[in-house]
Amino acid sequence: MQQFQTIVDRLGDRLSTPAPVVLLDVMEENIMRMQAFADRHGKALRPHVKTHKSIEIARRQLAAGAAGITAGTLGEVEIFAAAGFGDIFLAYPLIAVGEKGRRLRAVAGTTKLRLGIENTVAIDAVARAFSDDPDLIGLVIEVDSGAGRSGVAPEEAGDLARYAGARGLRVDGVFTYPGHGGKPGNREAAAEDQARALRGAVDALAAAGVRAEVVSAGSSPTVAFSTHDVITEVRPGEYVLNDHDNYALGNCEAEDIGFFVATTVVSDQGFAHVIVDAGTKALAREGNYDRGYGQVPEVGGVLSVLNEYHGFLTLPEGGERPAPGRVLPIVPHHVCPVMNSFDEVILSDRQGRYLGTWRIDARGQLN
Amino acid sequence: MQQFQTIVDRLGDRLSTPAPVVLLDVMEENIMRMQAFADRHGKALRPHVKTHKSIEIARRQLAAGAAGITAGTLGEVEIFAAAGFGDIFLAYPLIAVGEKGRRLRAVAGTTKLRLGIENTVAIDAVARAFSDDPDLIGLVIEVDSGAGRSGVAPEEAGDLARYAGARGLRVDGVFTYPGHGGKPGNREAAAEDQARALRGAVDALAAAGVRAEVVSAGSSPTVAFSTHDVITEVRPGEYVLNDHDNYALGNCEAEDIGFFVATTVVSDQGFAHVIVDAGTKALAREGNYDRGYGQVPEVGGVLSVLNEYHGFLTLPEGGERPAPGRVLPIVPHHVCPVMNSFDEVILSDRQGRYLGTWRIDARGQLN
Repeated sequence: MQQFQTIVDRLGDRLSTPAPVVLLDVMEENIMRMQAFADRHGKALRPHVKTHKSIEIARRQLAAGAAGITAGTLGEVEIFAAAGFGDIFLAYPLIAVGEKGRRLRAVAGTTKLRLGIENTVAIDAVARAFSDDPDLIGLVIEVDSGAGRSGVAPEEAGDLARYAGARGLRVDGVFTYPGHGGKPGNREAAAEDQARALRGAVDALAAAGVRAEVVSAGSSPTVAFSTHDVITEVRPGEYVLNDHDNYALGNCEAEDIGFFVATTVVSDQGFAHVIVDAGTKALAREGNYDRGYGQVPEVGGVLSVLNEYHGFLTLPEGGERPAPGRVLPIVPHHVCPVMNSFDEVILSDRQGRYLGTWRIDARGQLN
Repeated sequence: MQQFQTIVDRLGDRLSTPAPVVLLDVMEENIMRMQAFADRHGKALRPHVKTHKSIEIARRQLAAGAAGITAGTLGEVEIFAAAGFGDIFLAYPLIAVGEKGRRLRAVAGTTKLRLGIENTVAIDAVARAFSDDPDLIGLVIEVDSGAGRSGVAPEEAGDLARYAGARGLRVDGVFTYPGHGGKPGNREAAAEDQARALRGAVDALAAAGVRAEVVSAGSSPTVAFSTHDVITEVRPGEYVLNDHDNYALGNCEAEDIGFFVATTVVSDQGFAHVIVDAGTKALAREGNYDRGYGQVPEVGGVLSVLNEYHGFLTLPEGGERPAPGRVLPIVPHHVCPVMNSFDEVILSDRQGRYLGTWRIDARGQLN
């Protein structure tokens, strides 16, 4: 781990807890490392902005060589398009009816836009929303590679492509999210599933007369194994900051974690736990009963229960007992929803130098 | 339950999903019912604004007769004080050092402010922050009544009062949060624990020469049983909107639920679940593996897994299978963190009339 406690101590009064802190030097290394990986394997890197929702961070990803960005909601697309991002993939099976249809059409006039698609209802909605200028949007067909979430079976991608083509829409390629790569020990197997699904989908498109210009793969846990020839781009998100889950999966080194939440011990009544001022509204209840909801390596503690504004920091027997007023670093299990809890993030580096703050520009933006 | 599906259908294009909806008529009834209860038992009602974080909702609570409001963070205090709320209890063991000390002192110059306190570190911090004018703040000593969270044992309240008094600070009373009343079947027993703890604390204060002007009790699950003579005020929060947990606890009727989240089915690939567009960032992973993370009574479904922007809506075998594009109402387990996920809420009534929107003014405000 970073010397998080030293960083907390040096930031001192800059931290009004609970306070999210990004370590810019760690982040820059993560950005450079992933870009170098993508370059080495000839893949376009299209980072998912759901993790950070920050224009400044996304700018650094582009400056390092990213081909564009991935978004998860229409609101994210709008925020980043308004900030000048010119190449956005909305990797979500949005059904663009009503206001969302109008918004999608409007934003597509301001940026190169691709949209994930996996059913005919969604295709019909796009066809209606873009009836005046269907060239403004490219569809990317989602296939399931084992996550059991959204996406058609690979062999069905051709039928969807034909359906879209018959409605005057352009299909640019295929994508998948190998979410089962987030299970312990499953990263490489999930990446193999992903490659198989993408190959099948590319073949199905070819049979339908469509060349897959984009063949897009997830995700931070699987990207290291996503080097198959069929893949043209990768869409990791969490790598930019990392978290305890990625560390525990073997997906990053301890030194690559560039994000934590500073919290203050507010109560010690002699229980097996002390109370800190980070609860569900800050930490988003990521984790589970067994591994807890946030790690405090400095004292070997785990957040075992979260209320809204209270965290129950359970301490190891015989270990250090942090007193009320002590500020501690929490390493979250999952960085994305935690960033999304705050309007602003504090910037520092491994030395604990205060480097300012950034707005979390696309915080929320769920609908 | 309300006819949530009818409401969703009537709101139609007003809903850009995932969309939080407040039913104003249900809310008004909840406000009136709780106020009548408090009036009948001679208790001051001081609703907790953490549930709604809305100035307009808090104004209606005051208009109905509430004595003031309860806040959970300094940021909430600042937002509501700036909106003119003149009597605020920050029911949290804040340690007001650094910037927080300055902010607490500043806001106390603009509203009548009381602060929860349960350790000497926090008292020392308040004494420093208010050294110029200690009369601007009243301390309310927190005692534990069985939740095992924060708060001293009742018999220790006298020592804390003496400690505060020796530093020139005024102690106005005692409070507790009977959080164990949220366990099934435990509402009445927790309220009895609460009364016992509060009586003990009042006695301990008296022995220290301090009269407890305020004797403050929680909470939506226990308030119906919090009628003991010792109690002067009650601080429920969730009653104003309610949720599935309060309904399951027997703490409200189905017709008293005044909040839901509209969500769109975005994918159906023939699994036991369909995918909806409400995930952790909207629903905050409230609930658990056994009872799920949100109920969809209209189709007998339960959100069994949440990803960031995807909800896995597991359907009963042989039941209705909602198609992509269908908009469904989700009844959250816990209203408070869900309100906090959004910047704006849509207003309606039981008939599904569109009544505008409100900002969720104090959304976030965690630090």
